[in-house]
Amino acid sequence: MTRHPFDAALALTAEPPSRWHGRTSEDYWNMVSPYGGITAAAMMQAMLDQPERRGSPLSFTINYIAPIEVGHYVIETELVRANRSSQHWQIRLSQGPRVLALAIAICALRRDTWSHVEAARPAVPPPDQCPPAPPRKATGFLQRYEFRIVRGTPFAENPDSLSYVWVSDVPPRPLDFASLTAFCDSFLPRIFLRRPEFVPIGTVSINIYFHAGEEVLAGHGAAPLLTVAQAQAFSDGHFDHQGQVWGGAGGDTLLATTQQLVWYKE
Amino acid sequence: MTRHPFDAALALTAEPPSRWHGRTSEDYWNMVSPYGGITAAAMMQAMLDQPERRGSPLSFTINYIAPIEVGHYVIETELVRANRSSQHWQIRLSQGPRVLALAIAICALRRDTWSHVEAARPAVPPPDQCPPAPPRKATGFLQRYEFRIVRGTPFAENPDSLSYVWVSDVPPRPLDFASLTAFCDSFLPRIFLRRPEFVPIGTVSINIYFHAGEEVLAGHGAAPLLTVAQAQAFSDGHFDHQGQVWGGAGGDTLLATTQQLVWYKE
Repeated sequence: MTRHPFDAALALTAEPPSRWHGRTSEDYWNMVSPYGGITAAAMMQAMLDQPERRGSPLSFTINYIAPIEVGHYVIETELVRANRSSQHWQIRLSQGPRVLALAIAICALRRDTWSHVEAARPAVPPPDQCPPAPPRKATGFLQRYEFRIVRGTPFAENPDSLSYVWVSDVPPRPLDFASLTAFCDSFLPRIFLRRPEFVPIGTVSINIYFHAGEEVLAGHGAAPLLTVAQAQAFSDGHFDHQGQVWGGAGGDTLLATTQQLVWYKE
Repeated sequence: MTRHPFDAALALTAEPPSRWHGRTSEDYWNMVSPYGGITAAAMMQAMLDQPERRGSPLSFTINYIAPIEVGHYVIETELVRANRSSQHWQIRLSQGPRVLALAIAICALRRDTWSHVEAARPAVPPPDQCPPAPPRKATGFLQRYEFRIVRGTPFAENPDSLSYVWVSDVPPRPLDFASLTAFCDSFLPRIFLRRPEFVPIGTVSINIYFHAGEEVLAGHGAAPLLTVAQAQAFSDGHFDHQGQVWGGAGGDTLLATTQQLVWYKE
């Protein structure tokens, strides 16, 4: 059986105690750099694979510094501090002396507590009733995702930037924390939902809060995830969005909430 | 004229090139540690005061690791990388060998572009028509803020956790990036808007995107800020919220959007 392109892209070679060697993947290439989601996923995976890692990801924030060039890169993880129930990590990706992405993350033991999901999952048709969007590009990472758009027309002047989209890996792949991290960058840039023309954009920061543990992710399998996102402000060359990722065995569990800040040209 | 307690709390002594010495402030003390907002503000201020800093804050993420004890602390800033128009910073606060808070931030030059605020400022009565909430505590940081609650009753089973609150420094103080950072931790913990009883809580991570520059903040002056926040999920011992801070000369500019993740006991 051939390895899934996502797993091939995330194949890291350990240099103990805390360095990891990887290579950029053509399968997840974007315009001038790898897809931001695959970079975030590789840095997440390096942390998850550290032998001293305990608990599951709780929060993960990545700042993108400069484009990663085709070829070899190094990820360095640092366990800044471990408490009884949580760990604080810093993760850096570099090529030679140049740090190109910087992340901080928290892992924690999940505890059984009073729980309540206040966000409401949008009522949308199931994925098999929503046609897949035609590929936006013939090569690179957009080939690695199937998008079934329920709300939000790309490259149009929609009255708002709110979108509902079913997203899945191509080919299908069981969900885990690395792929969930990558899915958190699969949202269409919000500016393309407000303006008909293409403008250059680049994500500068992504923040993710994970609201479910390994078992819930494993229970989800390879089904499409429902992603929801909306911008709050476009100003002075940057816009934000806030997003939700819904899935789990019944498809109605809030797996992650995420925000990002994106640079745009004009 | 006496120095404002906020400025006294943020009085840092430089140890060039990149270390800053500070002391915890009784005025901004919380239960077992300084108010998280003042810690974030001190780390922001250290970055702002670095002579090589260019541009204004664009994103700021802080992870709280362990309580800061009364007394001296050190803040270390690192300019991880500077591009033509942006800077990537890392900031650590420690006492002795123990790192207690970890932040990453981006500063950038603001550019004149197509802009649009998609979020809607809630229609609320002006601050002078909303009575100040009685102080929740007789000492510490809660004395340093005045809260005028428009929506959301603390320690009650509200149908949702959405709150609108006018917040200002006590005594009034002109807004700047350090105080805006601190205001981003002034939201009532969302669990106290869903459950009537007190439970121990602690913020573990805050993310802030700044949507306005120095001039807009300076134009705001010392007027109350309108803060909006709502939780998305309470699960497995942690809850999130997403928040907005509205202000500016007319009071209707979205100054910052912010999210946080909070640990809770049961």
